[in-house]
Amino acid sequence: MRATVLHAARDIRLDDVADPQLKHDTDAVVRVVASCVCGSDLWPYRGINAVDQPVRIGHEFVGVVEQVGSSVSTLAPGDFVIAPFMFSDNTCILCDRGVHTSCVNGGIWGHDDKHGDPIDGGQGELVRVPWADGTLVATPSQPSQQMVAQLLTLSDVFPTGHHAAVSAGVTPGSTVAVVGDGAVGLSAVLAAKRLGAGRIVAMSRHEDRQRIARQFGADEIVAERGKEGAAAVREILDGIGADFVLECVGTGDSMKQAMLSARPGGRIGYVGVPHDVSLNVPAMFGRNIGIAGGVAPVRNYIEDLLPDVLDGTIRPGDVFDLTVPLDQVADGYRAMDERTAIKTMLTI
Amino acid sequence: MRATVLHAARDIRLDDVADPQLKHDTDAVVRVVASCVCGSDLWPYRGINAVDQPVRIGHEFVGVVEQVGSSVSTLAPGDFVIAPFMFSDNTCILCDRGVHTSCVNGGIWGHDDKHGDPIDGGQGELVRVPWADGTLVATPSQPSQQMVAQLLTLSDVFPTGHHAAVSAGVTPGSTVAVVGDGAVGLSAVLAAKRLGAGRIVAMSRHEDRQRIARQFGADEIVAERGKEGAAAVREILDGIGADFVLECVGTGDSMKQAMLSARPGGRIGYVGVPHDVSLNVPAMFGRNIGIAGGVAPVRNYIEDLLPDVLDGTIRPGDVFDLTVPLDQVADGYRAMDERTAIKTMLTI
Repeated sequence: MRATVLHAARDIRLDDVADPQLKHDTDAVVRVVASCVCGSDLWPYRGINAVDQPVRIGHEFVGVVEQVGSSVSTLAPGDFVIAPFMFSDNTCILCDRGVHTSCVNGGIWGHDDKHGDPIDGGQGELVRVPWADGTLVATPSQPSQQMVAQLLTLSDVFPTGHHAAVSAGVTPGSTVAVVGDGAVGLSAVLAAKRLGAGRIVAMSRHEDRQRIARQFGADEIVAERGKEGAAAVREILDGIGADFVLECVGTGDSMKQAMLSARPGGRIGYVGVPHDVSLNVPAMFGRNIGIAGGVAPVRNYIEDLLPDVLDGTIRPGDVFDLTVPLDQVADGYRAMDERTAIKTMLTI
Repeated sequence: MRATVLHAARDIRLDDVADPQLKHDTDAVVRVVASCVCGSDLWPYRGINAVDQPVRIGHEFVGVVEQVGSSVSTLAPGDFVIAPFMFSDNTCILCDRGVHTSCVNGGIWGHDDKHGDPIDGGQGELVRVPWADGTLVATPSQPSQQMVAQLLTLSDVFPTGHHAAVSAGVTPGSTVAVVGDGAVGLSAVLAAKRLGAGRIVAMSRHEDRQRIARQFGADEIVAERGKEGAAAVREILDGIGADFVLECVGTGDSMKQAMLSARPGGRIGYVGVPHDVSLNVPAMFGRNIGIAGGVAPVRNYIEDLLPDVLDGTIRPGDVFDLTVPLDQVADGYRAMDERTAIKTMLTI
């Protein structure tokens, strides 16, 4: 089969690789229908995370079950499934507590599983899925072509924005500021709106992203960044700042911006993978700013979010503004790297 | 009047100072009935926080209203009142959101108010109380001698423990670990129990403190500290750690111990004033550990906690194991410094 391989910084290719086979009786093999490129894929793509050897990449996909192992009981060949960006058994003590990202049997696409067997990346034609019953969520029927893009966001980007909002604790009627206008930040706007936020300020300098932010529920846009941006947020929100700030970037600067945008007693939900983020604990302590978040336990959220996607209440897939076939995956990465695309969908 | 003054590290004296007078029509003057020494008073007492000049000290007291300003409407001379450890107007936008410690008109006993007028410390005979209607909480009747100690804890130590539990988000049936066996840590045990925690592990090496921890609701005691202590907590709590960890010390070591005691997806409530605390953000992110807390907005909690104290449901005043008259204040500090007392009450 063909699968995306990152050979070195900015050297991404579609290579011929071995077809995956069932290895354990809890496995399934899924034929990928659509995948996409994540902002976090850009860290190794840009060489900021070192790439020492060619690596399979991609962790967001939807597809159709092709084969199942003998003990898989909830899925059958032909089922349309959503794969969370990590696999998990959905039965262990930590899955039981909703932290599927810490599953004792879990792992990451494109890396080895606990047995030392390699797992395919999501940007390819086929994927061996460990713990298929636990990992995959099947839709009640085959989705339309248009719905595929919407469902694909449940693999990562939308539940990650949702995780920022849930971790912060967004409540109905509250004020929310969102730092980051990438696909996750926009998803966080949509998630906050869905949870009933009363007033949402999106921070964005780009007209196309501002438009989607407004479509997703932002009431106000702040184009300034850093201290000036935070001051603008505070001025808009009663002079004190936001009840909840959703930090969707992961840099030291974006976290500072988030801290300064929160009101005393406010909460920050953060989902941007932290790079050089340090927290000013005495300042947080004095102002009673709390922070929670992390790698989103997507599997815990999919079943909650799926009905609203299927009935069209929310359209998280509108973050995709570029769709390319898998053999143009390099173009898809380049567009996101150069910020000419918000998020690239790959059709297989 | 006589009031406690810290002249230099470990040089604490009862000095004669000027009697306070009403200065603003929102003021009251309170005759102190009982005060106490806080763990945070030990930072300047020990010289860890620099003492450049003699300072009035003490921020926890109960007493009887002696005089009120012309616009004070909810209090009258003779009322028995509880003073939170910071004053606040209880009407501003931040008090309205429950963050009285960030009150736009608020401040700290023993320091100047917003007008630049000095405010008395709490370890003295009289205190001028700014924003008396907002700051003070009157009891429905005059308390018994025995009840005074219980009520005095509502000034700081018990609501501070409560703040750790509320900030962490302790829920009924949850597992809780408490780091710190000082008066605040013991109060946090009691607060977690009151909020319905299902299983509480207190970390303490001292038999007298262990006894109070058990009396307050601890199910298990862990005497080890650091990594070993955290490993013991994890072993007791399902092998994964606590849903909620209450950090009541404020050192880098105690925070590390708290982090390692939390399960993935757990929350830390912290109320120990941070000294050299840094947070490992990537580790928190990977394990979805959240943290919230800070300087406790005691005024927001007193009315909620008062009924349970008055009817004897809880006895937070049992943290006092030494009571001395005000003129022996130096002995009271020494006992806490040398850890021969958990918490010292001063009778005036």
